[in-house]
Amino acid sequence: MNPTYVAVVGPSGDPESPVAQAAEEVGRLLAEAGCVVVTGGGTGVMAAASRGAAGAGGTTLGILPGNDRAEGNPHLTLAIPTGLGEVRNALVVRAADAVVAVGGSWGTLSEIALACRTGVRCVSLLGWDLPETGGPVVADSPAAAVRAALSSG
Amino acid sequence: MNPTYVAVVGPSGDPESPVAQAAEEVGRLLAEAGCVVVTGGGTGVMAAASRGAAGAGGTTLGILPGNDRAEGNPHLTLAIPTGLGEVRNALVVRAADAVVAVGGSWGTLSEIALACRTGVRCVSLLGWDLPETGGPVVADSPAAAVRAALSSG
Amino acid sequence: MNPTYVAVVGPSGDPESPVAQAAEEVGRLLAEAGCVVVTGGGTGVMAAASRGAAGAGGTTLGILPGNDRAEGNPHLTLAIPTGLGEVRNALVVRAADAVVAVGGSWGTLSEIALACRTGVRCVSLLGWDLPETGGPVVADSPAAAVRAALSSG
Amino acid sequence: MNPTYVAVVGPSGDPESPVAQAAEEVGRLLAEAGCVVVTGGGTGVMAAASRGAAGAGGTTLGILPGNDRAEGNPHLTLAIPTGLGEVRNALVVRAADAVVAVGGSWGTLSEIALACRTGVRCVSLLGWDLPETGGPVVADSPAAAVRAALSSG
Repeated sequence: MNPTYVAVVGPSGDPESPVAQAAEEVGRLLAEAGCVVVTGGGTGVMAAASRGAAGAGGTTLGILPGNDRAEGNPHLTLAIPTGLGEVRNALVVRAADAVVAVGGSWGTLSEIALACRTGVRCVSLLGWDLPETGGPVVADSPAAAVRAALSSG
Repeated sequence: MNPTYVAVVGPSGDPESPVAQAAEEVGRLLAEAGCVVVTGGGTGVMAAASRGAAGAGGTTLGILPGNDRAEGNPHLTLAIPTGLGEVRNALVVRAADAVVAVGGSWGTLSEIALACRTGVRCVSLLGWDLPETGGPVVADSPAAAVRAALSSG
Repeated sequence: MNPTYVAVVGPSGDPESPVAQAAEEVGRLLAEAGCVVVTGGGTGVMAAASRGAAGAGGTTLGILPGNDRAEGNPHLTLAIPTGLGEVRNALVVRAADAVVAVGGSWGTLSEIALACRTGVRCVSLLGWDLPETGGPVVADSPAAAVRAALSSG
Repeated sequence: MNPTYVAVVGPSGDPESPVAQAAEEVGRLLAEAGCVVVTGGGTGVMAAASRGAAGAGGTTLGILPGNDRAEGNPHLTLAIPTGLGEVRNALVVRAADAVVAVGGSWGTLSEIALACRTGVRCVSLLGWDLPETGGPVVADSPAAAVRAALSSG
């Protein structure tokens, strides 16, 4: 009954890169599956995933690092300024039932590691591949990433 | 275009008290005005304001102190677990364009004071009356509280 | 055996005001009693209390709102940048076994209220006088404030 | 003049493991170099590093996840309860001028990644080896780890 909240995390930056295109597809598929898409509310992967989800009629939540709601990307249903800086990454993970990381960056890795640490299901696409036990599932397509994020196994 | 986010803060506890009834009316009026209603997601004033807003078709956001989304009250459109304990009170205020405090408690006072400290418009109803300059506007009815919260003056 | 941690909270600003002078005396007395003095690490009351404690050989801890340790006042034994902005006020209270509020401001009130909310002993000097049950003890001198903060009753 | 603050991060658990023994040596060397040793205040690597530093007369700061100061290990000069849960990991990194990670765990990786993300010098010993640009320096002994943490290059 209650929706599943899935965080899509990844680097800010170019919204037209292959990584961003994959993130947009992830967002679209999550929305079609009825999920709430949670991001850090910024550019790059965050904007692309939100755009994909919003375009499919989904709900998008942005948890922003700064104090100004206007800094959120234009694809957010709700934008939450926190004033916490990078500490808000931990809240993005905490707010999610599953995390899909698209692309690689140190900020993204911190969110993957925090998800693994706190037992939140985590999937990595086009980015970090950490072979250790308990690490993220590595997916090879947006569809596979969404399937893995939503599987209950 | 973008909605106004209004936090409704106040004590947890009895959802049928006069304070809770006032909070429910505040929530309803805010939703009718097109606002997003933000609360701490708990019982008492938080649940009543969310119930009022949801009953009027509004969007309600709960920023929870614990790690478990299921602890949110049943009237939330979106429930965000934070794991921050009482520190989440500061996020409720930060997420809001205006704050309506209904009833009195120490937690409520901390949110009023933080709103005044950070320049967020603040209205007090059936609770704290602090005469100092820069303090909350004191309203004498839910309708007056909502008018004051949404006035731009 | 373990020291008692006492937060001294109050407005930033003029370090030579009567309020700041009282805060310096509070800091000195706390250090003489063997306490660790915790502040937000800034100017005004925070700097004065830290100066008083450091001058008496005490340990002073500053929990800073920004990311830069150099923004702490020069009287801190340890300065902890948090990057949390005003949210760090909640950490100052959380870190303390008792709170002495000197002078009045909205930020100070938020810390008093949070202390009362979370059951941390709280004393008010030259500032907020809140008559409600469970509120801060109002002291009429630095010595009385320190006695009240350290009383176990 | 001002001391350098170095966080030592790593898994909780057995204080007599080779990883913990390395952490104790790191703590001792940091204290001998005049550094403040910052940890999450818990068991395992955190306790071992604190014990090593305290045994050499150093200052140790523990930033605790819970609300109870008594949960800190017995080797802390100052113990700061935060009530933030795992979010306190971000504060440990934020409080530090450099980070030495000893051993591997997901929580440790989140701290390494956050340090790399925010430009805090980071060294890894007996744990994560991430070859990406901008990642942690990998050291092969406690002495090498401390040298790398304190180098200005």
